[in-house]
This record gives sequence, structure tokens and C-alpha cells, in this order.
Amino acid sequence: MNVSDAIKYKRAVRQFQDKPLPRDVILAILDAGRRSQSSKNTQPWDFIVIQDKVTLKALSNLGTYAGHLAGAALGVAVITPSPEQRFSIMFDAGQAAAYMQLAAWELGIGSCLATIYEPEKARQLLGFPEDLFIRIAISFGYPLQDDQFDSPPVKGGRRSFEEVVHWERW
Amino acid sequence: MNVSDAIKYKRAVRQFQDKPLPRDVILAILDAGRRSQSSKNTQPWDFIVIQDKVTLKALSNLGTYAGHLAGAALGVAVITPSPEQRFSIMFDAGQAAAYMQLAAWELGIGSCLATIYEPEKARQLLGFPEDLFIRIAISFGYPLQDDQFDSPPVKGGRRSFEEVVHWERW
Repeated sequence: MNVSDAIKYKRAVRQFQDKPLPRDVILAILDAGRRSQSSKNTQPWDFIVIQDKVTLKALSNLGTYAGHLAGAALGVAVITPSPEQRFSIMFDAGQAAAYMQLAAWELGIGSCLATIYEPEKARQLLGFPEDLFIRIAISFGYPLQDDQFDSPPVKGGRRSFEEVVHWERW
Repeated sequence: MNVSDAIKYKRAVRQFQDKPLPRDVILAILDAGRRSQSSKNTQPWDFIVIQDKVTLKALSNLGTYAGHLAGAALGVAVITPSPEQRFSIMFDAGQAAAYMQLAAWELGIGSCLATIYEPEKARQLLGFPEDLFIRIAISFGYPLQDDQFDSPPVKGGRRSFEEVVHWERW
């Protein structure tokens, strides 16, 4: 799958088949995130990889729209330093997440971001150190609907090109 | 170019040929950013597209490692709401930037991020509203070195997989 098609057709997938991901697929997704660029190559991320259904269910209860994690074959918790330290931390986490989600899409795996609003409970669940932070977890799995990879993009799902793009000056 | 190769081989390109980008290429890069996903589909970004050499040179002086903007064929200033409003703004900007840079790479265009440390001067230069914010601009252009697209990844450029990835719990 070429890059432009991945970007054009990729959509959020929130319902997954009850089917585990092959280990090489999991490794490829994680490695895409690991390879991502970052400010001054600080690589401000760790990934906690969750396949245990009990943990996924518990994590899914720690965000408002995080329910899809409960049905995921794989959850990846994106752990970073506190984003209050510098603006680049969440920017870099966003780049790494985009890499993982695009790499997954090419491999036939859907995904969706979840926002974790209860970081202290997530810390207890996942055991990461007190000086680190969680805001984002990502669900991955085979889409329940198998027409996800060649459906056209939803019309009107984004602001228009003319609204977003300014030439030379605002 | 498939997604995994783009992710594997993409590298920061800071030196560019003195050659403009075709308009359809510019539109494709910008559209990749526009299509990116965002928290609750807020699309917290505007893109100011700069091809004027005087403006590029001026912008390149507003960040510590931003010099590469002066030689770019195209600069894209990523304008967002204040990132202090919510953590997702810079995360979403990171996703959009990753999409633009990967889309460009597939089209034979190198790119590099610049951090803008003088936002007020950038505002005067680019004319965006006071309630909006700039931290990131992206240089794009044909790489000066033409072996950039098939060079192997730099060894040791990233933390090891074992260090970054934690299984089930930290």
C-alpha cells in the first residue's frame, strides 16, 4: 500500500474481530513508532503493549471514549515525560502514534486513539514510574467490518483545503 | 512507495536543491496534513505555505536550528490554538506533520522540522491572529544529495526496541 492511499483511506476503526495479531505484525507496528523522529532525537516515549483482556477492559474504563480498547486485540499505552516540560513532547508522541497507525493500516490492521483521563489509575494498572505520564492509548485489531480498507473517505469529514491553507501570509 | 519503507528510510533532509516544487506536489503534501485525524475531529491546525525566499529566510532566523528553512523550496508554518489549552493540540499537530512529511517523502521530497522560538516575531512576519500559536515550521524541497531515498537507516539512531517496549506492564 502506498503512503498516499494509506493517508487517504485510513479511518478510525473501533470494532475489532476477536482474533489475535501475529507477533511479527505487533513487532512491526511497535517498531514503526520506535523509528519515528523527535525533537533533538529525544525519543520521549515508551510503549506498554497490552494483550491481556482484563487489562484492556480496565484501561478502557479510564477514558470517556476509550471503550474500544476493551475489544482490541492489542492496546499500546503511549508513556511520555510530562508534557508540561516542553511543547515538543506531545508533538513527538503524535508523530510516533501516526507512524504506528499507518504501519498497522498497511498490514490490514485498524486502530483508534483513546484519551486516558485518569492517569493515576492508569499508572496503578500499568506500573509506570511517577515521573512519567499517560494521555494516549491506541487500540489495534482486525476490523470487524471487512470493507474498511477500500471505502471512500467520508465527505465533509475535514475542513476545506481553502479554509486550512493560507498562501504566504494569513 | 509502501508505508513501511517510507517509515524505515525517511530521514531528515536539511539541504535542498534550488528547484521549486510542482504545484500538484505542494497541494498533495498539504492535503495529507489536512486529512489527518485529530481529537474529536477538532482539526486544530492552519497551514501557512511559504515559497517567498525573503520570508523563508526571515523565518529561518526565528529558531535555533531553523536555518534549513532559508534553503527550502517550500515552508509550511503549522499554526494551532495555544497548546496550553489541552494536551491534544500538539499531539494532533504532530500527526498532521507526520502525514505531510511521509506524503512528501513518497513524492521524492525531503523535509525537516524547525522549532520556532520567537512566536511574536513569527506572528508579525506571517500575520496570523493573536489567539493562535506557532511552534513548528517544516522545510520541504528536493534533497541536495540524491542518495537520500535508498540509504539504509543510520545505525544506533534510536533507542533499542527492548528499551522502548514494555510487555503488559512497565
